[in-house]
Amino acid sequence: MRSDHDPILLTPGPLTTSPATRRAMQRDWGSWDAAFNRLTQQVCADLLRIAGGDHTYCCVPLQGSGTFAVEAALGTLVPRDGVVLVPNHGAYCARIVRILDRLGIETVELPFAEHQAVNAAQIEARLAAEPRITHLALVHLETSAGILNPLADVAAACARHGTRLIVDAMSSFGALPVEVAAHGIDALVSASGKCLEGVPGMGFVIVRRALLAQCAGRSPSLALDLHDQQAYLQRTGQWRFTPPTHVVAALHEALAQFHAQGGQPARGARYAANCTALLDAMRALGFEPFLAAEVQAPVIVTFHAPRDPAYAFAPFYAAVREAGFVLYPGKLTQVETFRVGCIGAIDAPQIRRAVAAIDGALRGLGIAIR
Amino acid sequence: MRSDHDPILLTPGPLTTSPATRRAMQRDWGSWDAAFNRLTQQVCADLLRIAGGDHTYCCVPLQGSGTFAVEAALGTLVPRDGVVLVPNHGAYCARIVRILDRLGIETVELPFAEHQAVNAAQIEARLAAEPRITHLALVHLETSAGILNPLADVAAACARHGTRLIVDAMSSFGALPVEVAAHGIDALVSASGKCLEGVPGMGFVIVRRALLAQCAGRSPSLALDLHDQQAYLQRTGQWRFTPPTHVVAALHEALAQFHAQGGQPARGARYAANCTALLDAMRALGFEPFLAAEVQAPVIVTFHAPRDPAYAFAPFYAAVREAGFVLYPGKLTQVETFRVGCIGAIDAPQIRRAVAAIDGALRGLGIAIR
Repeated sequence: MRSDHDPILLTPGPLTTSPATRRAMQRDWGSWDAAFNRLTQQVCADLLRIAGGDHTYCCVPLQGSGTFAVEAALGTLVPRDGVVLVPNHGAYCARIVRILDRLGIETVELPFAEHQAVNAAQIEARLAAEPRITHLALVHLETSAGILNPLADVAAACARHGTRLIVDAMSSFGALPVEVAAHGIDALVSASGKCLEGVPGMGFVIVRRALLAQCAGRSPSLALDLHDQQAYLQRTGQWRFTPPTHVVAALHEALAQFHAQGGQPARGARYAANCTALLDAMRALGFEPFLAAEVQAPVIVTFHAPRDPAYAFAPFYAAVREAGFVLYPGKLTQVETFRVGCIGAIDAPQIRRAVAAIDGALRGLGIAIR
Repeated sequence: MRSDHDPILLTPGPLTTSPATRRAMQRDWGSWDAAFNRLTQQVCADLLRIAGGDHTYCCVPLQGSGTFAVEAALGTLVPRDGVVLVPNHGAYCARIVRILDRLGIETVELPFAEHQAVNAAQIEARLAAEPRITHLALVHLETSAGILNPLADVAAACARHGTRLIVDAMSSFGALPVEVAAHGIDALVSASGKCLEGVPGMGFVIVRRALLAQCAGRSPSLALDLHDQQAYLQRTGQWRFTPPTHVVAALHEALAQFHAQGGQPARGARYAANCTALLDAMRALGFEPFLAAEVQAPVIVTFHAPRDPAYAFAPFYAAVREAGFVLYPGKLTQVETFRVGCIGAIDAPQIRRAVAAIDGALRGLGIAIR
């Protein structure tokens, strides 16, 4: 199935999918057809279960990338006179700020260093100091550096202050445990083409039914109106506007594999093994990870670039790609880095081959790592 | 490739794609990779050419369904104090009115009967009578009934009055000729999963570069901001947010087939032959089309439902589906109808087999057509 021209993607998504997932796209589905409606219904029920949602939550699928679903959640769930606290330590937090700015919703930014997790105590202090804050938007796993944030602690702080919590779990969902009901999360957003190992093209929001029910007509966008999307889906079993049928079918198949492989614990364990293999092999070459171990999520690892002045990302990337592996550029503002993803339908032996390719590429380019 | 469980879709999209188009989704693409950027660049250049765009136009791709691209065009290109004339004779015209209402943009609706094309003379009279109208939003082919609208005449009226013209060409693009530069169209919107015979999951807007350049920061949505999308694409060669990589790859392959088969004239001729075969065979059974021949586009045909009081759409649909063909429900407000699409990777013999299946289904259900 995989030819010489198909590199392994070591990226935070789109990622390497399984042949069975891609084969699920070999059929055309009628978007009005009962068979497709069942597919949608099963995918949504599955996602709700993985999120730890009970009958008080629903799963609303949405066309487009994950960012479309993040904007839909913010635009539908936050009233125009709401005030949203956004802990900010990376590009995906900053994107939430930009979205809120466009929506005309007041934002309180709470900056953290880009190598650290957000701090739940400081967040709680801010909630206590500014009772006008109505919502908190948290990125669970900041993909810019690869940091896992303390979701349970932040959720507990929100609960104590009656603050609504919206979680961007784009790069964590499926790999790391989330429990929306147990943690009292109001809405959680993720997408098809990340740790669930589907293909990109749809997002979804797991949201409290009672909260969504209050939001009729609030979204300034028709396309991104989660309330309208859910009401139509509930009434007809269909998506409001043409669904990405092949993407939904691929996610349905990817979810079947997810469960057959042991669900979130097994997915998380495989990615953790990938991450350990990556860190061990890269350290053996002389690379240093950017993050301390306690904040490193097993999803994407940021490495300091070689100090050799002859190093540049583009030729390095091209040489590693030539060897069959696609890396990811760094996304930090201060430090020269590059990133290697641990997620997708890959395992530790492939990770070790990728590191061997990185070694070979640098030797070929005559670049010293330290 | 097509099993007994894969029915032929006689719907306005998602539709039946070719095996080669579906096979193009068997590869994973890195969204940051130069190979994928070339794919995007080639698709956009191709779409621009098919639209009759010159160097003063660009093609902006967008994640999501076609409606997302329609909203993006309206939200990015129409100023908040603009006034948009919307000739309205069906569900897709009405959707534009709903989108504008959410955007807080004033709309002037000009209703037409749902069995007639919009009237260019009446549109021009309205433009003359209400000079405050700044924009006109025209649905080229109203899929609700299947009507082709007089785009060239409406465009000429807009040109005479200095009215900006935004065209929803969702169900016509690729099958029927459009010439954005020659007709002076400001923006034209369509999607991957219609007459280009790709899979659903992306839309696109062909827009005047100079107009788009004036629209920085205007969109109230970040996800649906066409200016930002185009600026990023131009600067980096990449989509701003995760692209639906497999959908783009399928459209790239579908466009190669489109050109190999003879481009728009050949596509339009095949669909016209499908439409003629459909009308002839259905008339032979006793079915009457809802539309007069002069407004019927060769894309989707609305038929009056059988008059037999025992007829209901659901069992009829199920019986035809059992025979391997997916029909489409009617979308008219006054009359009981159903629809049969002529588009997709299908030809006249398949259309005739579908009509035989319709005949067989009704006989099986004991329903008289007249």
